[in-house]
Amino acid sequence: MQDAQQIIDTAHEMADAARAAILPHFRADHLATDNKRPADFDPVTEADRAAERAMRDVLARRRPQDAILGEEYGATEGRSGLTWILDPIDGTRAFICGAASWGVLIGLSDGTGIRYGLIDQPYTKERFEGGLGRARLSMAEGGRPLAVRKGIALSQASLMSTFPEIGTPDEAAAFRRVAERVRLTRYGLDCYAYALLALGQIDLVIEAGLQSYDIAGPLAVVEAAGGVVTDWQGGPAMHGGQVIAAATADLHRQALDLLNG
Amino acid sequence: MQDAQQIIDTAHEMADAARAAILPHFRADHLATDNKRPADFDPVTEADRAAERAMRDVLARRRPQDAILGEEYGATEGRSGLTWILDPIDGTRAFICGAASWGVLIGLSDGTGIRYGLIDQPYTKERFEGGLGRARLSMAEGGRPLAVRKGIALSQASLMSTFPEIGTPDEAAAFRRVAERVRLTRYGLDCYAYALLALGQIDLVIEAGLQSYDIAGPLAVVEAAGGVVTDWQGGPAMHGGQVIAAATADLHRQALDLLNG
Repeated sequence: MQDAQQIIDTAHEMADAARAAILPHFRADHLATDNKRPADFDPVTEADRAAERAMRDVLARRRPQDAILGEEYGATEGRSGLTWILDPIDGTRAFICGAASWGVLIGLSDGTGIRYGLIDQPYTKERFEGGLGRARLSMAEGGRPLAVRKGIALSQASLMSTFPEIGTPDEAAAFRRVAERVRLTRYGLDCYAYALLALGQIDLVIEAGLQSYDIAGPLAVVEAAGGVVTDWQGGPAMHGGQVIAAATADLHRQALDLLNG
Repeated sequence: MQDAQQIIDTAHEMADAARAAILPHFRADHLATDNKRPADFDPVTEADRAAERAMRDVLARRRPQDAILGEEYGATEGRSGLTWILDPIDGTRAFICGAASWGVLIGLSDGTGIRYGLIDQPYTKERFEGGLGRARLSMAEGGRPLAVRKGIALSQASLMSTFPEIGTPDEAAAFRRVAERVRLTRYGLDCYAYALLALGQIDLVIEAGLQSYDIAGPLAVVEAAGGVVTDWQGGPAMHGGQVIAAATADLHRQALDLLNG
């Protein structure tokens, strides 16, 4: 892509702006409630909207030619053929509980696929990015390359999902067919599960009921780290719905067979 | 307690030593495996043992008069009437997956109860401590007092547990009776759930099948923050088994009724 570096710089500036907008609301002190706030004040909704506005402000200044699809403020047209897909806080339930597994998701689509994406965790200051030649975790101090781990058999694999909370009964049954065959299943890490897959720490993420903004950023990160991301039929995952991410083609094929068995 | 400050200083030195012993093993780079290691090398077991040895070394130097009960190396007798209860890595499954919800647990028993305890998360550099007049979260930069949140109705409460992975069918059914009545249930945060309760972010933690070293540290932290910790019959929780921790006496009573309904 011609302006790859400018796109990457823009994404980082967007993630920085989202961090600054969200962090004051995370683990906000319940002892210091502002009495002027309306009774229905919802810190996570407030943080979600403030972060998307902050990211849109960066785009308006740096890349007004690009389209935007955001979880909070919907679609904005563009003329470049590129669309930024934004989820300012993925994992609002984790956020509400004070757990640091939520993240800011940014993906860039060229209409045929996701070319670049990032998962940012503002509290731990971890930023996972992939695409346009990059596959990297950046931290407050240093960082490391992202790479999935290879050579793990299904029986030794670690699986993560937002289940058992999400999915139809059929989807839950399909998920259990995989869960029964792996070494370890963990729940509730939202987008952070894809980050751990790209970091070579786990082997499979299986989810259902996703929106495109839930998966655009994670998809780019996992693919850049060498992983495979599709829907449960093996087709493109960028539109959301049922998604499987696997460290290797072998694990991907075995898990797909079980999901559809 | 007469030597409270020296006890607190010792606990912090132990937690520092555990951090140093464990962190090199967390998210260890799978690309840089040492070929000289035996084939059955298990990084979490190695980290667990190294951390307990490091904590025992601190105690041998600073408080040789105290007894020790450790998850990895069992019981060591003392003559002071005080026992340090150690779980070097609580949440080994989270550790294996690269998720930062595991913790180092330290509790100090005087034979009648847990007088002081801490939950340390080495990767995020968060240390939650309670007892002997303290109730505090310390971080790399600054910190804040620990205090449970008050005035949340059961229907608005957030519940955490290691379930659905742990427990007999009866325990799981009892747990579900509570889960069906709360706003939000999250799984798999291990000791970090107690830390979030003490931080005023969630309202209930319900678990079963615990060991004394799983609960000694968290119990002191939650009680110091103003919460209630008992077994499912309302008796002492320090021996493990079925444990419930609640932000308020009201939530505790309502949840106990449901568990035993």
